[in-house]
Amino acid sequence: MNHKLVAKILGAMLVIEGVALMVPTLYAAATGEDALAGFVVAALCCFGIGVPMAFLNTTGLRMQRRDGFACVGLCWILLGAVGALPYVISGTVTSYVDALFEAISGFTTTGASILTAVEGLPNSILLWRSMTNWMGGMGVLVMLLALLPKLGDGSANLMRAESPGPVMSKLVPRVADTAKILYIIYIGLTVAEVIVLCLLGMPLFDSITHSFATIATGGFSVKNASIGHYQSDAITWAVTIFMFLSGINFSLLYMALRRRWRDAVSSEELWLYAGTALASTTLITIDLVRETGISVTDAISDAAFQSMTVMSTTGFATADFAAWPAVSQCVLIMLMFMGGCAGSTAGGVKSIRFLLLFKNTQRWLHCILHPREVKLICVDGKRTEESTMTNVACFFFAYMMILMTCTMIIGLDKVDFLEAFSAALSALSNVGPAMGSLGPNGNFAALNDVSKLTMSAAMLLGRLEIVPLAILLMPSVWRRK
Amino acid sequence: MNHKLVAKILGAMLVIEGVALMVPTLYAAATGEDALAGFVVAALCCFGIGVPMAFLNTTGLRMQRRDGFACVGLCWILLGAVGALPYVISGTVTSYVDALFEAISGFTTTGASILTAVEGLPNSILLWRSMTNWMGGMGVLVMLLALLPKLGDGSANLMRAESPGPVMSKLVPRVADTAKILYIIYIGLTVAEVIVLCLLGMPLFDSITHSFATIATGGFSVKNASIGHYQSDAITWAVTIFMFLSGINFSLLYMALRRRWRDAVSSEELWLYAGTALASTTLITIDLVRETGISVTDAISDAAFQSMTVMSTTGFATADFAAWPAVSQCVLIMLMFMGGCAGSTAGGVKSIRFLLLFKNTQRWLHCILHPREVKLICVDGKRTEESTMTNVACFFFAYMMILMTCTMIIGLDKVDFLEAFSAALSALSNVGPAMGSLGPNGNFAALNDVSKLTMSAAMLLGRLEIVPLAILLMPSVWRRK
Repeated sequence: MNHKLVAKILGAMLVIEGVALMVPTLYAAATGEDALAGFVVAALCCFGIGVPMAFLNTTGLRMQRRDGFACVGLCWILLGAVGALPYVISGTVTSYVDALFEAISGFTTTGASILTAVEGLPNSILLWRSMTNWMGGMGVLVMLLALLPKLGDGSANLMRAESPGPVMSKLVPRVADTAKILYIIYIGLTVAEVIVLCLLGMPLFDSITHSFATIATGGFSVKNASIGHYQSDAITWAVTIFMFLSGINFSLLYMALRRRWRDAVSSEELWLYAGTALASTTLITIDLVRETGISVTDAISDAAFQSMTVMSTTGFATADFAAWPAVSQCVLIMLMFMGGCAGSTAGGVKSIRFLLLFKNTQRWLHCILHPREVKLICVDGKRTEESTMTNVACFFFAYMMILMTCTMIIGLDKVDFLEAFSAALSALSNVGPAMGSLGPNGNFAALNDVSKLTMSAAMLLGRLEIVPLAILLMPSVWRRK
Repeated sequence: MNHKLVAKILGAMLVIEGVALMVPTLYAAATGEDALAGFVVAALCCFGIGVPMAFLNTTGLRMQRRDGFACVGLCWILLGAVGALPYVISGTVTSYVDALFEAISGFTTTGASILTAVEGLPNSILLWRSMTNWMGGMGVLVMLLALLPKLGDGSANLMRAESPGPVMSKLVPRVADTAKILYIIYIGLTVAEVIVLCLLGMPLFDSITHSFATIATGGFSVKNASIGHYQSDAITWAVTIFMFLSGINFSLLYMALRRRWRDAVSSEELWLYAGTALASTTLITIDLVRETGISVTDAISDAAFQSMTVMSTTGFATADFAAWPAVSQCVLIMLMFMGGCAGSTAGGVKSIRFLLLFKNTQRWLHCILHPREVKLICVDGKRTEESTMTNVACFFFAYMMILMTCTMIIGLDKVDFLEAFSAALSALSNVGPAMGSLGPNGNFAALNDVSKLTMSAAMLLGRLEIVPLAILLMPSVWRRK
């Protein structure tokens, strides 16, 4: 690992976090909230440590692929560690482990919370929570690349390590330009949702925080009852649509903006994503009407919202799906696995990986019948490299193993198997709520510290797609080059 | 597909089943049990249909790989369909679906039952149940190959399709000889267990039926309380050891018999299998002592027995693990996934596949750090083909998808998520008992027909490792060549 280069990036990332912390600082100062001290201390930490590191001279040093991964892993751990400070210092949360859980849950856009009630908290704290969602959604290092285009050689390796999905899609030849375009779409979607929610009667502060949480597919709400608080069908459907959009590969949104409609609409991943959303909404609607006897319109709206909130791994709630019948729960658990599209802000294994795994399995059976045929795997008419297939297969296996290990560690706590399993899956796929007592109406406060740290690790592993953190465990990465 | 050749094999298989049916027929005739009629009708069916088919002239025809798979798939479906007849005709079971469930559960060595109590049943029926376990364990087509060495060209394809594991290990150059050796070891183990159990005070009938069920890792018992009925530590430990042996790759047992100890003991798969057994016994012991307060000796014996019964996918019981604490349940569910070694009578994904998947994932991470290195995957010092890796990865994904689909279908029944999930997993991995109300103290009688048929399909998919059945769904296989 190139220590100097990595330190510089870490420093720059801290400065960005410090600047972001100024927003709730100013809000707290303006409204005279007590939480001010926490933000000031956190911001000072960021600038105090970050500025000297950011000005290290790294001329002539080139970032290798391994540096990119290691750097992203370290950045995200540091991001959570510092982001937790305001919660503890302001007294919102008493233990540092809880604050770390909340911060990592925010940045990884999981949205799982250890807070039993959010409505009494200072607005500046709620704003910071939503901002962690928003910053983590598109990625802090992508933001860095957008802001500092002259970061140096090999900065594509940073973006590759932070972007979700098996292959990074460059929208335009230069990495910094790609990062800029992604952030422009991201900001555009956020502003659009703020306007829509305001028009539908949601207060401005709530609209902004909920839009941050929606577009990042984070799920932190400023209301105890989440989106269900507003009891408005229009708001529910608006949020459902924005969650759907946020789970789409941003390169497709870019194509649509460039009026390349045909390319965007013919994406196989999009069809799998939209098809799954439709199928699960239908299944859950039937199950709800059959088992609970609610009206069809209510069932459709509940089913669509909950399907999208789980599939886009946002984690808002309008209904308590932990109390739903078994089939609906099965469907939701499967959606937790799958998640959204690659290159979106959603978590999970991602539709494209399922698509590739399905195609690989189909080819496997075909080759048993026709052993002499050579069959290539194509997505959207383009050939997929065999190395990508290996990558995807290994990722899927590693995902399952991490899920099982986390389930077992959380199982040591006072929870049953379903709670442990769904909590691990929900954290790993960055969804938020789990099942049983850890469902949408519950929270994670009652878990012990070991479970909370395990879930935090799972959230980071899920958001960064395993490699950047797994690599930090290999001694050879730490050796100075 | 070569229809004539496949018909001939199906006929020969039916004749073998008919001969096997003579054993309970004679038993029922000798003891004057009412069940006699059922066995006679079933045997007549076998001979009536089987003999003409078995004498088809297939000189000059060669069995292709696809014929082998299709033949194995069809054979096993037919085996279950005919094996169910004695249950229905004798009136032991009232519905044919239930009888089919029981027969397929027997042949696939799952051991899940729809019978609420077995102690009042005629002995001939209990004998037939145990015999289905035993015949399915090593495989009916392997038996066919052992008995009819001159079956024709390409018979290796039959064995490849029926033997569990990603690569078939030929013990000796000729397939028929391999089949014979396998059956000699199989019979040897069975006889050894019968003698041991008799010496430990189990009645002869019980010893024989339980040995059939143990060595086949089937799990059908002739007592309502399974092995727990005998309340004997010696019997419990003896069965534990025989379950452990039955889960080992039979080619290792062959090496041991040939005094190639060093080769046998250095097998990486054996180490993973034994290590997992030891680790899970330890974990469950600690959990049981901590959570339920039973004595350490009892906990060790319960933990070892239940770990081995689940890992070897036998499914006997001495304790109700559905009532155990969460960690123990998590461990058992993971063992259900893994199962025993390839080339044994156990089910599950198999240790060797986990070993290969672990090595593949390790290589994946290594290659990210060292992109220019070419790294081969070796097991026991031998290079593994890349096609085997693809095969294993596809198998793992297909296994997970089948598991989820079955969970969802069973979830439509009146069960909760854990019950549906564990029933699907238990069926697919050929274990037997599931969790919740479907645990060792329960049974599957209360499920509806759709769930029972789904579980039956899962059992066949698990026993035959997907391909032979998946291939039957492809129209091109059915075309006459």
